[in-house]
Amino acid sequence: MRHDPERLSFEIDARDGPARRGRLVTPHGPVETPAFIPLATKGSVRGMASREVAGIGYELVLGNTYHLLVAPGPDRIADAGGLHEFMAWRGAIITDSGGFQVFSLAHGGISEEIKGTGKKREGLAATLGIEEEGVRFRSYRDGSELMLSPESSMSVQAALGSDIALTFDECTPFHADREYTARSTERTHRWLDRCLAWHGEHGSERQAVFGIVQGGTYEDLRQESCGAVSQAGVDGIAIGGTLGRDKAEMAEVLEFTVPELPVEAPKHLLGIGEVDDLMHGIGLGIDLFDCAVPTRLARHGMALAPQPQKRFRIDIRKSGAAGDHRPLVEGCPCTACSDYDRDYINYISRSEELTAVRLLVEHNLTYMERLMAGARHAISGKVFGDYRRAILSGAAPTGCCP
Amino acid sequence: MRHDPERLSFEIDARDGPARRGRLVTPHGPVETPAFIPLATKGSVRGMASREVAGIGYELVLGNTYHLLVAPGPDRIADAGGLHEFMAWRGAIITDSGGFQVFSLAHGGISEEIKGTGKKREGLAATLGIEEEGVRFRSYRDGSELMLSPESSMSVQAALGSDIALTFDECTPFHADREYTARSTERTHRWLDRCLAWHGEHGSERQAVFGIVQGGTYEDLRQESCGAVSQAGVDGIAIGGTLGRDKAEMAEVLEFTVPELPVEAPKHLLGIGEVDDLMHGIGLGIDLFDCAVPTRLARHGMALAPQPQKRFRIDIRKSGAAGDHRPLVEGCPCTACSDYDRDYINYISRSEELTAVRLLVEHNLTYMERLMAGARHAISGKVFGDYRRAILSGAAPTGCCP
Repeated sequence: MRHDPERLSFEIDARDGPARRGRLVTPHGPVETPAFIPLATKGSVRGMASREVAGIGYELVLGNTYHLLVAPGPDRIADAGGLHEFMAWRGAIITDSGGFQVFSLAHGGISEEIKGTGKKREGLAATLGIEEEGVRFRSYRDGSELMLSPESSMSVQAALGSDIALTFDECTPFHADREYTARSTERTHRWLDRCLAWHGEHGSERQAVFGIVQGGTYEDLRQESCGAVSQAGVDGIAIGGTLGRDKAEMAEVLEFTVPELPVEAPKHLLGIGEVDDLMHGIGLGIDLFDCAVPTRLARHGMALAPQPQKRFRIDIRKSGAAGDHRPLVEGCPCTACSDYDRDYINYISRSEELTAVRLLVEHNLTYMERLMAGARHAISGKVFGDYRRAILSGAAPTGCCP
Repeated sequence: MRHDPERLSFEIDARDGPARRGRLVTPHGPVETPAFIPLATKGSVRGMASREVAGIGYELVLGNTYHLLVAPGPDRIADAGGLHEFMAWRGAIITDSGGFQVFSLAHGGISEEIKGTGKKREGLAATLGIEEEGVRFRSYRDGSELMLSPESSMSVQAALGSDIALTFDECTPFHADREYTARSTERTHRWLDRCLAWHGEHGSERQAVFGIVQGGTYEDLRQESCGAVSQAGVDGIAIGGTLGRDKAEMAEVLEFTVPELPVEAPKHLLGIGEVDDLMHGIGLGIDLFDCAVPTRLARHGMALAPQPQKRFRIDIRKSGAAGDHRPLVEGCPCTACSDYDRDYINYISRSEELTAVRLLVEHNLTYMERLMAGARHAISGKVFGDYRRAILSGAAPTGCCP
């Protein structure tokens, strides 16, 4: 671990058991933690202007190296003055390394695996080869051959100018066996060193680097990876790779992984963000979470809601919502809940009106931000346990104290 | 013509030749004219919350009887307290009669005809029969058989609770011959009487009714129709039906139609709204225009812009926009022009990001509102001719004085 306040400082203000409330200070302002990070995969949060995402209270978004490399390409974003300027986002940006995407092409999507489906992804895009050097793949945009390696990933992230870059890793799938996972994790550690070497020589002093812990569901491999990443001289640590086939296994993997990491390091759990997962992760001392869930649910007519027995969501397209004049969530300050009712959103969502997706994205992101703000308050008040229990038993997040 | 200030009053404040600036006062507030009316076809303006549409400056939107009849149905909207309440729109609403849609199913889309293509529409929906009684058609939603007649159209519009209802008419297509058009126009006049009879007996005193002039491209039929509608006891007059195969023919039809109508009547030109058409229509004394153009263009990556030689639009997906760091339109106050540049919008529009459509809808509606606000100022200053010339030769609308 290294500490360089010019690029990143992480201050812990309050603790409640392993849970902590803090502040990541980046060159683009502070990020109150624990924080949920909306995805701006291709330089925009689905349906939202950047100023609107900031208006909800977000201070950090996640950009996607793989997608931005395929189009518009790092040169064009650098010419625009970097990703912040390009997408008119005044806050902080973390960029993933592209590893998740290129290996998803090869192995099948990891997000499906956590849900136990393990489908292979289809499409124009294809991985052409995984080598020690890096991964060759075909652009889904124009079929051209592209390469992501530790060096090229860091170089793209340098051009994007994110506040936090993630190192290039292999995201091992759930169906990988122990031997594959062990060899892959060792290679990820060699790639980590190459990323840091590139960044030391060419990177900006204003860009922090987070290393990624791999090791699949194997306790010894995870512990080994925690040690390797902790000692590598990174500014923060992300937990990647498969976390198992279900939530019970994810809990187990996190319980034997997180305590192996330095307490003072900012910790990011990659790609996880259902309501119960956030409560669990915060309880273990995770500071950052990113996930497609709030925006993806919106596309399918789903609103986040305090309904633990229904995975914290309402399917607004179901007939029960027709004629229901309640807001999605009582007291929620988003546009959908302030101006409209379930009856209307049921209709426009079933009618595939663009406004429905937009309203649901804003609602779901508002819900998440209030959930996290409430958690931060609860940690300060040393009542995070109560807060978590209340949320898990169906309390609506209010953005404030439990 | 009738005048009942409880449901509608129309005040003319300034004149500049046939062009006039005025104010339509509805039970849901005033509408400054000449006005462009955004389409809220299925109870939402594409991608926008109602409060955002009002924020741009709009005071009147158009809802669609045909689509709202198919789903969610008039009973559900009435149960919600009417269309204003349902869609959280505080301003005024005009509803079309559904005639355009059911006849488009039978005849092919009229909007294509004005552009000279005259394609037949395809899809699940189908017209099952055109009779004196009305039109039977099949729901595109569930295949059920539905009926629109003068009485049922007015009854649906009563349930929607719009401020202005349009009478049920046959929208004759360009390819209809003189004999068909003459017979159809006469039937439309009989339907007009039935609409007014139904409304007199069952309608709300707070809902105004506009009659629709038909007659195709035939001067004598148009004149006859102007007379019939003007004498029927309506609150305002809409001009519908085919206006010919191109803009020259449209100009000709309007020039022999508009002078046949009472000067003091509010006049609505249905379905027309390109920039040059608006300038032309305002110059003839038209007060209201509705059109899908601003929202439809957005879906196809088109931004309205002061480029007369390019039909007042920029194709933002074209490669010329990549690397272009100018706003869509210099000085435009919309989010797209305030926060982003053409380079970014080119990228997100080519990437099919929802945010692109949303930003372009807001831009196009902002452009239209400023164009119309400028026209209102110009009429007050008796310089509408200068304004029109400036716009047609490439001046950007500023919402203010020329």
